[in-house]
Amino acid sequence: MAARNLPVVRVSLKGAKSLRRGSPWLYRTELVEPPAGEGRGRVVAVVDPQGNPIGQAFYAQRSPLALRLLTRRPATEEPADEAFFRRRLEASLGRRASLKHRDGLRLVHGEADLLPGLFVDRYGTGLTLQTLSEGMDARKEWIARVLVELTGATHVVCRDDASGRDFEGLARQVVLLHGTGEARFTYHEGENRFEVDLLGDMKTGAFLDQVDNHLRAGELARGKALDLFSYHGGFALALSRTCDSVLAVEQDPKASERIQANAARNGRKNVTVENANAFDVLRRFAETGRRFDTVVLDPPGLAKRREGLATALRAYHELNLRALKCLEPEGLLVTCSCSGKLDREGFERVVFSAAEDARRPVQILERRGAGLDHPVLANLPETEYLKALYVRAL
Amino acid sequence: MAARNLPVVRVSLKGAKSLRRGSPWLYRTELVEPPAGEGRGRVVAVVDPQGNPIGQAFYAQRSPLALRLLTRRPATEEPADEAFFRRRLEASLGRRASLKHRDGLRLVHGEADLLPGLFVDRYGTGLTLQTLSEGMDARKEWIARVLVELTGATHVVCRDDASGRDFEGLARQVVLLHGTGEARFTYHEGENRFEVDLLGDMKTGAFLDQVDNHLRAGELARGKALDLFSYHGGFALALSRTCDSVLAVEQDPKASERIQANAARNGRKNVTVENANAFDVLRRFAETGRRFDTVVLDPPGLAKRREGLATALRAYHELNLRALKCLEPEGLLVTCSCSGKLDREGFERVVFSAAEDARRPVQILERRGAGLDHPVLANLPETEYLKALYVRAL
Repeated sequence: MAARNLPVVRVSLKGAKSLRRGSPWLYRTELVEPPAGEGRGRVVAVVDPQGNPIGQAFYAQRSPLALRLLTRRPATEEPADEAFFRRRLEASLGRRASLKHRDGLRLVHGEADLLPGLFVDRYGTGLTLQTLSEGMDARKEWIARVLVELTGATHVVCRDDASGRDFEGLARQVVLLHGTGEARFTYHEGENRFEVDLLGDMKTGAFLDQVDNHLRAGELARGKALDLFSYHGGFALALSRTCDSVLAVEQDPKASERIQANAARNGRKNVTVENANAFDVLRRFAETGRRFDTVVLDPPGLAKRREGLATALRAYHELNLRALKCLEPEGLLVTCSCSGKLDREGFERVVFSAAEDARRPVQILERRGAGLDHPVLANLPETEYLKALYVRAL
Repeated sequence: MAARNLPVVRVSLKGAKSLRRGSPWLYRTELVEPPAGEGRGRVVAVVDPQGNPIGQAFYAQRSPLALRLLTRRPATEEPADEAFFRRRLEASLGRRASLKHRDGLRLVHGEADLLPGLFVDRYGTGLTLQTLSEGMDARKEWIARVLVELTGATHVVCRDDASGRDFEGLARQVVLLHGTGEARFTYHEGENRFEVDLLGDMKTGAFLDQVDNHLRAGELARGKALDLFSYHGGFALALSRTCDSVLAVEQDPKASERIQANAARNGRKNVTVENANAFDVLRRFAETGRRFDTVVLDPPGLAKRREGLATALRAYHELNLRALKCLEPEGLLVTCSCSGKLDREGFERVVFSAAEDARRPVQILERRGAGLDHPVLANLPETEYLKALYVRAL
């Protein structure tokens, strides 16, 4: 079957098998014959060593991740043109129909929404767009226009400042693709209102993947609560609804101020902010014997930042052990990991080993991940990174 | 430290290590010296080979599971007497305080509630009590009296007819421990009302461990729905709230009648019941091309009933493959396994391999287990059996 006008990429037998088994990614090492000619973010026809068609993919000129499959159908049946990407964007938005009560959510979640390397978040009428593939990077102005048309957004901020872009050989930039002036927006997590600066804040403004966990923790929490690595206070504010008091600990002074502002904006007078290191605070509580009924532990991706997994595992163990030790009997621990390199089983082993060392029976209440707007692609374990474990220490 | 009046059981070094690492169970092979004397369900003092105290445990005369730890504290500090068991019962009920809007739930979940081998369910004002340890079996009349006092129940039905009793060397029996006459009760799952006959129904009347999954599936489902292995229609009725139509498939004629009655009772006119085998029905749909927007797959514990895990894995694979194949694009599959012998990772591998064979990209939306009233004990993986995976087939 002729691939209409598309450059052809021939892949190895191993590569063909992997793509046919369901993975949408192929590394450059499995290319037998790259495409002729040049061009940024081109769509290519992928064939196996015998020339049998596998599908159409983005071809990246510089990334080690050379191919990102778009469809298994040939261009004669389903050309990967603008109409194709528009249908995919519409489908991705359509999947969020059940979340229309939310004004802060992810609208497009990359490969899991069959839009490889494209991430779009909504905050009120503002959108952030991030591309982590050459194919999407080359189309981002067009994508921004389509998103404005489909959502009525007033601003689209390109947040192409993630470290993942370095791996792809793409320059980092933060720029307004649509709208003018500042890009400050308001969104809600349940009853709580938050403000984000889509041009100025860290990451794409907030941690929308944790919204459902913020709310669930708020439902299950009670008494005196401790929120470690609080960032902008997403957990802290959710906890403040049901808890008597919340101590939010955050090392970054600017983020600490933001928690204060968010608490004030929502009239939460039972939230206290401490600008400090979580490890230090837990060590102090171990000495002073201070105890809590609820502890939330949501550290940044330890396995990304430090020397590797072994160091990260030691850090997770220490944090969880100390968190368990400062829990009152029947206390709730909500413990999270967003380290992609630490899988769910590995994370649970660390938490349970900390429970053994804390010498307390521990009930597993729930296992959660990111919310419905951040699905995981079953055939691409790399799209899963966020783990949240809800346990009760008896 | 002398264990006041308690018979002493000496365990091996390996056994002592296991108990000290957090496991509450010890098999007879690890006993070095059984207790002197005789008596059903006695509490004993457990010591290591050097005679150092480990805690107090139920000693079973006949079960291979000889010891079930009750507390790591010695009898001088915390005697395992009636006051002790009453405190444990009160704590277990107290943990369900946040579920008081529910009139059907588990009140005591065995080891995970630190009451080894005791399972108590509530249906309105009726309770079922099941004991799977000699220690609890010997105390069940007393426990029933305490439960009546704590909950105001009108009936306590002893449902000691589980196969687990054979393993413990305990006879099977179904008997009223409190109340007279019939034991028919009504309870709710969300809006839906169900009737149970605590003396006559299979198992302890219903599958309360799935209540939260029934409701969550109902929230996420839409369109034309198929509920396989429907039993009394817990999923089917929850789906009927949000779906256009529900086809409930159930092989047992009596259970099929119950689905009809439950649908009628709740005025659900969009539920159709088919009294048939789920495998046959799925094969028929493959031939006729009938498709659904939502499929629920909640088979009985395949790994318990058949020749073993390999056969069960083939059955799970076939069911999930066929279920995925009869899903419309963007369709939701809620797939469950209650086989204790198949762990979470193994179950997910089967589902994802079925997704590969179905040649459809699959989004993982949520991983769930039993509800909050059925916690898992982190140090006893045996207390985890129910896995539910919510996926969307694109």
